[in-house]
Amino acid sequence: MSPSFLSHAQPYFAARSWRRGLLHTLTENRRCLGRRYASNASESTPAPTPRTVFSGIQPTGIPHLGNFLGALLNWVNIQRNAQPGDKLIFSIVGWHALTLPQDPKALSEARKEMLAVLLAIGLSPERSIIFHQDDNPNHTELAWILNCLTPMGKLRRMTTWKSRLATSRNARDESEVDESLLNVGLFTYPVLQAADILAYKATHVPVGEDQQQHLELCRDLADSFNRTFKGKTTLFPLPQQVFTPSRRILSLRDPSSKMSKSSPDIQSRIVLTDTAAQIKTKIRAAVTDPIVGVTYDPETRPGAANLLTILAAFTDESPHDVAARYHDKGHGRLKADVTEAVEEMMRGPRAEFERLKGEVSYLATVARSGAEKARELSEVTLREVRTRVGLA
Amino acid sequence: MSPSFLSHAQPYFAARSWRRGLLHTLTENRRCLGRRYASNASESTPAPTPRTVFSGIQPTGIPHLGNFLGALLNWVNIQRNAQPGDKLIFSIVGWHALTLPQDPKALSEARKEMLAVLLAIGLSPERSIIFHQDDNPNHTELAWILNCLTPMGKLRRMTTWKSRLATSRNARDESEVDESLLNVGLFTYPVLQAADILAYKATHVPVGEDQQQHLELCRDLADSFNRTFKGKTTLFPLPQQVFTPSRRILSLRDPSSKMSKSSPDIQSRIVLTDTAAQIKTKIRAAVTDPIVGVTYDPETRPGAANLLTILAAFTDESPHDVAARYHDKGHGRLKADVTEAVEEMMRGPRAEFERLKGEVSYLATVARSGAEKARELSEVTLREVRTRVGLA
Repeated sequence: MSPSFLSHAQPYFAARSWRRGLLHTLTENRRCLGRRYASNASESTPAPTPRTVFSGIQPTGIPHLGNFLGALLNWVNIQRNAQPGDKLIFSIVGWHALTLPQDPKALSEARKEMLAVLLAIGLSPERSIIFHQDDNPNHTELAWILNCLTPMGKLRRMTTWKSRLATSRNARDESEVDESLLNVGLFTYPVLQAADILAYKATHVPVGEDQQQHLELCRDLADSFNRTFKGKTTLFPLPQQVFTPSRRILSLRDPSSKMSKSSPDIQSRIVLTDTAAQIKTKIRAAVTDPIVGVTYDPETRPGAANLLTILAAFTDESPHDVAARYHDKGHGRLKADVTEAVEEMMRGPRAEFERLKGEVSYLATVARSGAEKARELSEVTLREVRTRVGLA
Repeated sequence: MSPSFLSHAQPYFAARSWRRGLLHTLTENRRCLGRRYASNASESTPAPTPRTVFSGIQPTGIPHLGNFLGALLNWVNIQRNAQPGDKLIFSIVGWHALTLPQDPKALSEARKEMLAVLLAIGLSPERSIIFHQDDNPNHTELAWILNCLTPMGKLRRMTTWKSRLATSRNARDESEVDESLLNVGLFTYPVLQAADILAYKATHVPVGEDQQQHLELCRDLADSFNRTFKGKTTLFPLPQQVFTPSRRILSLRDPSSKMSKSSPDIQSRIVLTDTAAQIKTKIRAAVTDPIVGVTYDPETRPGAANLLTILAAFTDESPHDVAARYHDKGHGRLKADVTEAVEEMMRGPRAEFERLKGEVSYLATVARSGAEKARELSEVTLREVRTRVGLA
């Protein structure tokens, strides 16, 4: 399972605009976040409207490389490139994790670990609001109100729901799972996601392609609320997608499937807590193919393509361009360079994570303070919402 | 619309055990609330386990006679007959009202009026916890968690949902309403009701027959939670129904339909704010039939049967027995006695309601204090819930 917003599917708020990760310069990074930064150099340009960026990640275990190249390092980039007036809100979305069966003890641990991870990769509780969703009941309150504005048909059309249905129908012969056994949380969680975003009047939400539809629902609900409950001002801005192309990182052992924390083969993934030696071993043992020379061909050479995808994520190139640079080199050289890049990226966060894990009371303080800031902000929205719907 | 829990259907928590209303003696009333009170006179009997009674009512306007003989006076009886250790929790459930379109201004007013009504009929904020559901976010938080334990099929089987579907399908030709346009709040509100109850670990819930199925769902969810998230103790007691037979009070002008606040003909209903003269006029004009003599025959003589049902509600008799007493009297005499009984019951609450309506700051204080008490109680439950599911 990925530690993203929706653990059983592609990361939801998993933006992939990250290119060269921590190696990037500030200037270079600005390019990644869109045109509004392009003209910042000019003194005469009016200051851009401050943005409110919201993103969430599920607490489902120590993140692996796929999660890093997905949501996590992108968040760091967003923080690094933010303008002084921008609000940055990053949430560990425990309530979403409950849509799938969880071991409570493991979930509780993963919830705390994820906070340490976010700090370890460089998110700053001084600059960003970092908090546990389940510490802010404004989310479920707003979700209920949005439920009453959400037509059943809209949720039925969510591809995430359809794919759950398809899965359960295929499984029917064996385990008698069918639609009626799927839980209501799985059906309605896109509404909770909308509430997560709108509670802060977020203007910008980094989402992967697979979750575009959920952001579209969020925009629909914002618009529907604005039209149903008019006031002197339009209450909700329609949040914009910070578009980030999906980058699927595959299992190192079976490149026909995604890198996943739930795979029984721990050699299939690189996780934050892996040592340099373990990273080296795992990448060296990564499944490729016996064909001589490196080409990028995800269909016929998925293992090699996966390594190229990983390296491309660090160098801001397309996997094709990376392949071109390696066309006369062997897989061995490619693997060595991937190993170096991964270790370079993991080293700092890994050490910081190990250090922070022991800082129990510091982590508790960060969580408490983050929740307070989040609640303070969302309470302003909720007060307006309650007044507009007539519950005040 | 009735001001009950579910405004578009039969009252949900509308118990009808009330018999002689405010005329009842304490001793007589105790009979209505079940056997546990029967042996209280005996000093040697062990004290019954304290009960936690929860009930909710929707804020959808000044209540009419049907609401009084439904939920409202029953609540007064519950309070009057409660044992010292019993916890009594009465909630004005604004979030449920949002499942149907509401005029925000009217809802906001109805919300405050309903609090005044509850105090006016004799509920005491010293004895009972009286509060606005929407002042306690623990309800929506628990509802989310229960969503994740609720199979879709269970909600689909709710007759309230099925009847909404049937209605929307019938309307299809005219207005193109169909299932997919019904809102998610309508589909999931039985889960919010379960949370309303379980947040306080309520042991007793007065419900009408029409809402038995929702209480059954609540018990299922409590049991499901207890089994899924085991601890040293069983977290949720399975709430018992305080069974109260439904008593349908019909329109005075068209006894083929229920007395309803949404009927355009204000002569069809008696509301709390009606004067004695208005009550008299409305009952005198109530539709009956030209047949001589009084008999109870809801099929062929619905108007007369309705008057007998109303009177029976005040005298703790069956409508048949009341009819027997009137068999040689005319409808005029019956109407006069109904008028007297209704006015006798309404007089005190009406005056008190008019007085209280002006006490804006007192009402605000009662609401605030009720919400604090409710939150204090439910927060204990929610802390346990969070720990058990792994979100702590």
